[in-house]
Amino acid sequence: MSAPVDHSSRRAAVARTIAAAGHRHLLVSDLKNIRYLSGFTGSNAALLLGTDGTGTIVTDGRYDTQIRQQTASSPGLDIRITRDLFGELTRVAGEEGYAIEPGLPVGAARGLGDPEILAGAVESARLVKDDVELDALREAGHLADAVFTEFIAAGGIREGITEIEAAADLEHRLRSAGADGLSFDTILASGTNGAKPHAGVSRDVIVPGLVTVDFGVWLDGYASDQTRTVCVGEPDALARELYEIVHRSFRAGVETVRPGVGPFAVDKACRDVLDEAGYGKYFVHSTGHGVGLDVHEAPSASVRTDPAETLVAGETLTVEPGVYLPGKTGLRIENTYIVTAEGAESVNPSTTELQVV
Amino acid sequence: MSAPVDHSSRRAAVARTIAAAGHRHLLVSDLKNIRYLSGFTGSNAALLLGTDGTGTIVTDGRYDTQIRQQTASSPGLDIRITRDLFGELTRVAGEEGYAIEPGLPVGAARGLGDPEILAGAVESARLVKDDVELDALREAGHLADAVFTEFIAAGGIREGITEIEAAADLEHRLRSAGADGLSFDTILASGTNGAKPHAGVSRDVIVPGLVTVDFGVWLDGYASDQTRTVCVGEPDALARELYEIVHRSFRAGVETVRPGVGPFAVDKACRDVLDEAGYGKYFVHSTGHGVGLDVHEAPSASVRTDPAETLVAGETLTVEPGVYLPGKTGLRIENTYIVTAEGAESVNPSTTELQVV
Repeated sequence: MSAPVDHSSRRAAVARTIAAAGHRHLLVSDLKNIRYLSGFTGSNAALLLGTDGTGTIVTDGRYDTQIRQQTASSPGLDIRITRDLFGELTRVAGEEGYAIEPGLPVGAARGLGDPEILAGAVESARLVKDDVELDALREAGHLADAVFTEFIAAGGIREGITEIEAAADLEHRLRSAGADGLSFDTILASGTNGAKPHAGVSRDVIVPGLVTVDFGVWLDGYASDQTRTVCVGEPDALARELYEIVHRSFRAGVETVRPGVGPFAVDKACRDVLDEAGYGKYFVHSTGHGVGLDVHEAPSASVRTDPAETLVAGETLTVEPGVYLPGKTGLRIENTYIVTAEGAESVNPSTTELQVV
Repeated sequence: MSAPVDHSSRRAAVARTIAAAGHRHLLVSDLKNIRYLSGFTGSNAALLLGTDGTGTIVTDGRYDTQIRQQTASSPGLDIRITRDLFGELTRVAGEEGYAIEPGLPVGAARGLGDPEILAGAVESARLVKDDVELDALREAGHLADAVFTEFIAAGGIREGITEIEAAADLEHRLRSAGADGLSFDTILASGTNGAKPHAGVSRDVIVPGLVTVDFGVWLDGYASDQTRTVCVGEPDALARELYEIVHRSFRAGVETVRPGVGPFAVDKACRDVLDEAGYGKYFVHSTGHGVGLDVHEAPSASVRTDPAETLVAGETLTVEPGVYLPGKTGLRIENTYIVTAEGAESVNPSTTELQVV
């Protein structure tokens, strides 16, 4: 990455939220939140953040070298190595006490005497991405998108090979292009498997017709998430009709994305097209979600989203309508967008038109 | 898999634990526990299990088709499709109430009125694997082990390519061999990266010396986990000495594994060899953990393990001592074992001797 990450500013923003809620400290247990506030990427850590933006971060001996390297450019953090993460931080907080995050397991929370919960303190700061984050999201999205284009051009999806063989090829290309890993289990669904929105990858042989591919990578801590549906051989009338309708729904959603508009309206724009075509009941999931250090994070675009909530430049949102006909076929089209001053920037610039392979 | 899974027996065993603890139902929220008790593999579900071994399982509309397929051979489960998983199950439980698992996020638990916690009810059933599970663990372990052997024979690790290139090659081979996915982020660490026990994979070029590779797959829901350290070029005196000592520590641990012996004793056997050689302080993690539907599960072999706890046939345990010299080099050797009546069966049968590549 180009610019250094300013963890101190991030911590200062969260510190103001902690103070406004009347707490002296927040015990941050979510590992993505810890990474956001400190740069540390280990799998075992906790962070006690005070209202002055300084904090104490704890991990175990496996990460002694790593935590010092990763937080070297981030002053204001006291590093402690211990096996008893929460015990150590409880002693640091002392009588001032602390709030906890709602994601902490209830077993751990009761062990701490059930402190008060402060929800969304770090997540609200993560909602609007800073420039370093936007660059990382673009890099991740562009990498995955370019690799998929090459994969299709190279005949990666074809009749007669198994879904798992095609997915292994795609994943190898993603990794070889520099991805740190896959941001979720790839979906590569042919035939009736496409009727399951979260089909995964099976050992079934790819057959003529629609093939839905939902895939993503990690790059420098940030996720990509996109879906393309291609057709093996010429589409029949049903496949052509379904694709045309979902693509229209997709475009209607994308055109809605801009600052001041709500994710609820984006969902409604997608849903209205499908409803009007008589396929609304086969769209069984939400229209979109934010993407960042988590592959699913705020905001959410669904029928349950508060209509008063509005998008702000720097937020992210996927637009991913789909139609799934039980026992028959299905498809989905998805890009991840950055909300800009003017509207929406796709981090997955390749065509969303139906490609026949 | 050959034999069908007997979810009813599993549920009956957990039901007895629920009754013995004085509860009428357990609200199972851990997705691996839900899979264990029902066969359902979706990413959003909850299960209310009663003391008669029947239950109500809820998921959302995305999984309508999938949950009916996956639980078809598992009678005794009432399936409900809803967005409000916990609300639905709360209504089903009614005044009889329910206990919750300790892993439920505290935010969700407080939304339910903070019911009592019942810890380990499903995990204690999962501790001793049934034959279907042991077959799955063997298949996963053998697959990963055979692929790694081919990968090394094919020159997969060599001077001049990057760690990520080598890892991409290994992961592609694992996936092409039929792995459903990687059970954790691969570690492939050369040079000073090997001094970090959880190094990950970097864009650094592989240099002569030790290269630690910790990798695993998912197969039919079960994980594999093993580590091999190879040497690029002839080992120098330090590399040779370290490998010899860690290998001796590893063998000492493995020879200890059998029914009636405690995981604490396995840890001690490994640790004693390293202590005696003066490297004990560089062994900064536990010796082992169970492997099953989770890649890290009970039992645990560490200095903190209760010395009174003993292994039972059908449990699993990794043995994975390592030495990490900060800023210099490091290595680890790891197999996953099934505890048998006679001792220990490795599911990763390839050589643990130092291979020069």
